[in-house]
Amino acid sequence: MTSKLNLEKINLLNQAALNLRIDSIKATTASKSGHPTTCMAIADLMSVIFFDFIKYDINTPENPNNDRFILSVGHAAPIIYAAYKNLGVITEKELLTLRDFDSVLEGHPTPRFKYNEAATGSLGQGLGIAVGMAINAKHDKLDYKTYVIIGDGEAAEGSVWEAAELASHYKLDNLIAILNCNRLGQSGESIHGHDVNKFANKFEAFGFKVFIINGHDIQEIYNALSQAQKVQNQPVIIIAKTLKGSGLKEIENKNNYHGKPFKQEELNNIIKELENNFGLKYTEKINHTPYLPEKLNINNLNNNKNVNIKINLEQDINNQLFDKSEKLATRKAFGLALEALGQVNKNIFALDADVQNSTYTEYFAKKYPANFVQCFIAEQNMISVATGLQARGKIPFAATFGAFFTRAFDQIRMAGIGRNALRLCGSHCGVSIGQDGPSQMALEDIAMFRAIPESIVLLGQILTTAKL
Amino acid sequence: MTSKLNLEKINLLNQAALNLRIDSIKATTASKSGHPTTCMAIADLMSVIFFDFIKYDINTPENPNNDRFILSVGHAAPIIYAAYKNLGVITEKELLTLRDFDSVLEGHPTPRFKYNEAATGSLGQGLGIAVGMAINAKHDKLDYKTYVIIGDGEAAEGSVWEAAELASHYKLDNLIAILNCNRLGQSGESIHGHDVNKFANKFEAFGFKVFIINGHDIQEIYNALSQAQKVQNQPVIIIAKTLKGSGLKEIENKNNYHGKPFKQEELNNIIKELENNFGLKYTEKINHTPYLPEKLNINNLNNNKNVNIKINLEQDINNQLFDKSEKLATRKAFGLALEALGQVNKNIFALDADVQNSTYTEYFAKKYPANFVQCFIAEQNMISVATGLQARGKIPFAATFGAFFTRAFDQIRMAGIGRNALRLCGSHCGVSIGQDGPSQMALEDIAMFRAIPESIVLLGQILTTAKL
Repeated sequence: MTSKLNLEKINLLNQAALNLRIDSIKATTASKSGHPTTCMAIADLMSVIFFDFIKYDINTPENPNNDRFILSVGHAAPIIYAAYKNLGVITEKELLTLRDFDSVLEGHPTPRFKYNEAATGSLGQGLGIAVGMAINAKHDKLDYKTYVIIGDGEAAEGSVWEAAELASHYKLDNLIAILNCNRLGQSGESIHGHDVNKFANKFEAFGFKVFIINGHDIQEIYNALSQAQKVQNQPVIIIAKTLKGSGLKEIENKNNYHGKPFKQEELNNIIKELENNFGLKYTEKINHTPYLPEKLNINNLNNNKNVNIKINLEQDINNQLFDKSEKLATRKAFGLALEALGQVNKNIFALDADVQNSTYTEYFAKKYPANFVQCFIAEQNMISVATGLQARGKIPFAATFGAFFTRAFDQIRMAGIGRNALRLCGSHCGVSIGQDGPSQMALEDIAMFRAIPESIVLLGQILTTAKL
Repeated sequence: MTSKLNLEKINLLNQAALNLRIDSIKATTASKSGHPTTCMAIADLMSVIFFDFIKYDINTPENPNNDRFILSVGHAAPIIYAAYKNLGVITEKELLTLRDFDSVLEGHPTPRFKYNEAATGSLGQGLGIAVGMAINAKHDKLDYKTYVIIGDGEAAEGSVWEAAELASHYKLDNLIAILNCNRLGQSGESIHGHDVNKFANKFEAFGFKVFIINGHDIQEIYNALSQAQKVQNQPVIIIAKTLKGSGLKEIENKNNYHGKPFKQEELNNIIKELENNFGLKYTEKINHTPYLPEKLNINNLNNNKNVNIKINLEQDINNQLFDKSEKLATRKAFGLALEALGQVNKNIFALDADVQNSTYTEYFAKKYPANFVQCFIAEQNMISVATGLQARGKIPFAATFGAFFTRAFDQIRMAGIGRNALRLCGSHCGVSIGQDGPSQMALEDIAMFRAIPESIVLLGQILTTAKL
């Protein structure tokens, strides 16, 4: 089913795996902080993804048909920058600005570095963002794949399972997750240690096609990624058993090396040891250009243009929606306005967490089912999916009871850091919503949203406000 | 393995199941809002739990060895009140105050009604609270069981899987979860519909002993609950296939009946139809008193006394902890103070989400391992477990990076509604934490915590503050 890699390819991928390790180490040593041992755990996986599989128009990161790559374990950010350095996109000098105050190479990924697809670093959010991107590909009939590396430690976050469930529900066979099972968290062993079968059982139960591999065996990684391309009607996860600090015998798979850069004076010896262990010499870059994605149908491209909603709303809908002499619940006004917006701009998406008949996103859902994402009762993932859609040019409106947005504060916060413009509409807010009681009533949500940089809070009290 | 119920017992449990349905309907009709059809789905389960299995000193709800019961699907609250009415704890008149402004019988459970163990109503939190209570029983060597009813819709919440994972990790064989698989959510079918095997596979993969039953067959419910008592070293879930609106043929298992009370004028006919379908007449109450729990060892009781921490801290530790001439990171001061507190009060617990070496709860963990709960990277569940522990008389300190408390805003909000006094210590906060970047830095957390009623926010800037 899969071919044996030829020696030349294996050499190139090993060379990349060595370079990625050394460049991650160099960058974190220069910045005197960061997580080199996590980078080393995923270096072989990154090598095969970036230096063989990924289809990416390297000169045009905004190409809508580029494969997407999300590093959910955001603290391994240096290895992304190392990959782009080895692809010739950034220089060594730039790489060594990692974590500098004015560098776009932040300690955890943000889209300030334009090859980063999303802000990550608060764990457990990458899979949900990837789900949003994979849904976008299905919607736009684009054939890009979305790759996402998640950690074993972060798989304790419930948001991972919210995302897994939705990926399976929407049969996202264009989503390829890789779980870096490196046994060790920050302060000790993760919940399943190196027991990859525990993870396999969970993801199988959640509807994934599972491959278990040695995450340091180039051929095994290649085989799994090859087979992953062919899976149909279900998402894929490759569970890779890895060693934290892989490549340096005295630290690999040992506790107490999380988030600890090497010292400047150790650097030469470490590089030598890695070179010896690989039987290769470190090189400045790798002689590989990613394969180009399929050419786009011009209709797909049109789907992705950004539109100023407000102007269109005023031009096209104007005041025809509501009878101003009638009283109308603000949430109903919102539902009607959203439905009308669907006509104006086909990039608008509505996302629901099983309350569409309360927030009245059901109007939009009925009229534009292809642009409606039912996220079920999983508000965290609803925000991450919205973030993924927005990153791919869509205009997501996510709605639930205002109170339940508190469930997704961290995801909303991260979308703020990623500068993803989300439209979040919370209903049932105010000083009292009556008989349902405080658990269903939002008031704290204003404090939450106002704390997000660049947020705009609109309180729909009167018809005209709610309409906008 | 299980005995056949005798006719008398079956009659009593059927009578209770009928009464619980009718009383839930009466209460929601009186309040003109609420969720009678969800109550009807779980009426048979509630009957067997409350009128046979539960061991509860009904005159002493504060008895530490009472079995605990958490209704995670908080919108079915009326059936709890109906159960206590049928046990003779409240009158019909009181039952009909459901959802009145000054009634303790709130639309979603809060401990204002003293038989409610926790505030629920924001979905997906009950299992985590139950885990906290089950951990408490193990810690105090109490033999009470913790029962929790969760919904199929709410099982989409990631927090459910965070709790499931921890329950399995701590081998909580004193935890009995019941999943009400009634197919329908609020606005449509839940993600797995009536496919109980999907849920079974998931919970098995998460380490649970699973029983699948017809949730309307008294004997099957009895058998599963009997066997659940005997399971060892793993938590139990009983997956019950049920019908929303069970008992009324024209509405059961049909969409669009979520959260819709019956009209006053329909009431007589509905009661008649239910009586006909059961072949029984509605009665005022059920002639059953719950079995008493085992008598307590006096040492266990002492464990549960409440202590004023502050006074003890000042008396016993005074100023001996720190050398005031030395600079000390506030988080280290916190870690030292928490360790010292462990000596003062054995009810103090510390909870961590795999950052104990950053927040310095590791000092406490090393000295008091039995009072330390490693929650892994699952902040939502860390708060729910703390809530469960606090409800059972413990004094939980949960600590992580301040930024990551945003992950648990909804759980923190619900603990506020439940008036559970939690001590939450967030590190790495302020205007900048330096190179790790904004994803790791808390600033929004102040807005969040200040919005919680009765919260007290202390900002540890100087040694003395951090120490307290």
